[in-house]
Amino acid sequence: MKTSSKKIEVRYAETDQMGIVHHGSYVIWCELGRTQFIRDIGFNYADLEEMGILSPVTEISLQYKYPAVYGEEVTITTWIEHYDGLRIVYGYEIVNEQGKICVTGTSSHVCVKKENFKPISIRKQLPDWHAIYEREKKTCE
Amino acid sequence: MKTSSKKIEVRYAETDQMGIVHHGSYVIWCELGRTQFIRDIGFNYADLEEMGILSPVTEISLQYKYPAVYGEEVTITTWIEHYDGLRIVYGYEIVNEQGKICVTGTSSHVCVKKENFKPISIRKQLPDWHAIYEREKKTCE
Amino acid sequence: MKTSSKKIEVRYAETDQMGIVHHGSYVIWCELGRTQFIRDIGFNYADLEEMGILSPVTEISLQYKYPAVYGEEVTITTWIEHYDGLRIVYGYEIVNEQGKICVTGTSSHVCVKKENFKPISIRKQLPDWHAIYEREKKTCE
Amino acid sequence: MKTSSKKIEVRYAETDQMGIVHHGSYVIWCELGRTQFIRDIGFNYADLEEMGILSPVTEISLQYKYPAVYGEEVTITTWIEHYDGLRIVYGYEIVNEQGKICVTGTSSHVCVKKENFKPISIRKQLPDWHAIYEREKKTCE
Repeated sequence: MKTSSKKIEVRYAETDQMGIVHHGSYVIWCELGRTQFIRDIGFNYADLEEMGILSPVTEISLQYKYPAVYGEEVTITTWIEHYDGLRIVYGYEIVNEQGKICVTGTSSHVCVKKENFKPISIRKQLPDWHAIYEREKKTCE
Repeated sequence: MKTSSKKIEVRYAETDQMGIVHHGSYVIWCELGRTQFIRDIGFNYADLEEMGILSPVTEISLQYKYPAVYGEEVTITTWIEHYDGLRIVYGYEIVNEQGKICVTGTSSHVCVKKENFKPISIRKQLPDWHAIYEREKKTCE
Repeated sequence: MKTSSKKIEVRYAETDQMGIVHHGSYVIWCELGRTQFIRDIGFNYADLEEMGILSPVTEISLQYKYPAVYGEEVTITTWIEHYDGLRIVYGYEIVNEQGKICVTGTSSHVCVKKENFKPISIRKQLPDWHAIYEREKKTCE
Repeated sequence: MKTSSKKIEVRYAETDQMGIVHHGSYVIWCELGRTQFIRDIGFNYADLEEMGILSPVTEISLQYKYPAVYGEEVTITTWIEHYDGLRIVYGYEIVNEQGKICVTGTSSHVCVKKENFKPISIRKQLPDWHAIYEREKKTCE
């Protein structure tokens, strides 16, 4: 099971008047974690879109444990929580500099054709992606 | 069980290069739905913060069914999915102009003191909020 | 000279840890003012894009006078500061509920073809838009 | 004259349906450039806020030359365009991987007390910052 790690500098614009990072900002960070994961397994999300395939989010679930703040760097770890040839569920853990877990969560994705948003089978239409996702997914599920 | 409704004009900046609303934008829309709900039951979130109390998000979960697009107005319906005197779970449904459900979801919140982020009992420390939340929560749970 | 007015409820996510609206949020509000202006003169920006024409920003300039805060509603007034058949400069003024001017500014735009981002002449290729922009622009310039 | 350089990976969420980076995203990137510049001259903006001093934006001006896109990394160069002991004007240039200038611009800032937003003299109240800003500002102005 492959995990991927990415450091993210907290941006001022990502805070809100609570003095902490706005809860919506972590959704964007998960996107960065995902992009990095895909890069680390040898692909590139931008290439996928050039092939006419999009990978929209179908579900997101985040648990907020501890607030990240401006001035620190957080680390997001990303892995494949679930994969069945059609749907990918990424898992995330965001940790601050002191090692405190800020957020955990998952996001679900399918692949669709850009022109009509019709779902495609990753197994059949992206066999090279399928092979890696099948190999690198969390095995204890 | 009270439900609250708010119309939201889709902003250009809320789209992404998929040509649809970015999945993170709906998190912000839920915040708008929540603000409206609180106003509709006779309170004001800004007042709460002036009293030194914050209501951070502890969990968010969204299911994406159909993409909202720029140029349309969506309607978010908000209600209290669960409430136990300590924790509030809001429920959301976002519908487009054609009546298609775009997103459903929930967000969980506690109340904390602004100065130290320590949780407080809504039941004990905000009895007027408690009375309304208790009365207006979803009863079929 | 036509001016257009739009009320905008300040969003919590638009604040930052200064406790005021983040300066980047006003850029989005100008976009809302612009959309409203275009609607008020009888057009629709979404239609323009359907015709294969985009109107990217080439310049933005904002002066921050007074901070807008969460819990209030601001009003943005938009007008055509300058128009020459090729380039449109919109003018903006954002005022809070107490009538205080929060932000003034301008943004410049051209029209380009979606497929190649090549500039087009509004005068020649969008004669109906041209007629209105010519008529409604600020005359005292 | 000191210049500071920072690489920024373009985020998917920073694009819009034009297929390019939304013009508001560059405002955030300038903030990142500024943070890096302050760090490179030996200070830390978060420390300033801990001392009860904020540095709000009073003016921003950006010229958009060429669109940045998802999948690339841009570099922002930041310097002190102007400084007079009270007001700092930062200069910015954002360049893509091919060396094309995407955006140039400036932002103006003052320093204010956190509790009342009253302006302070950087020269008098932040003498160590003053010394460096005086020394590192653009000299050919």
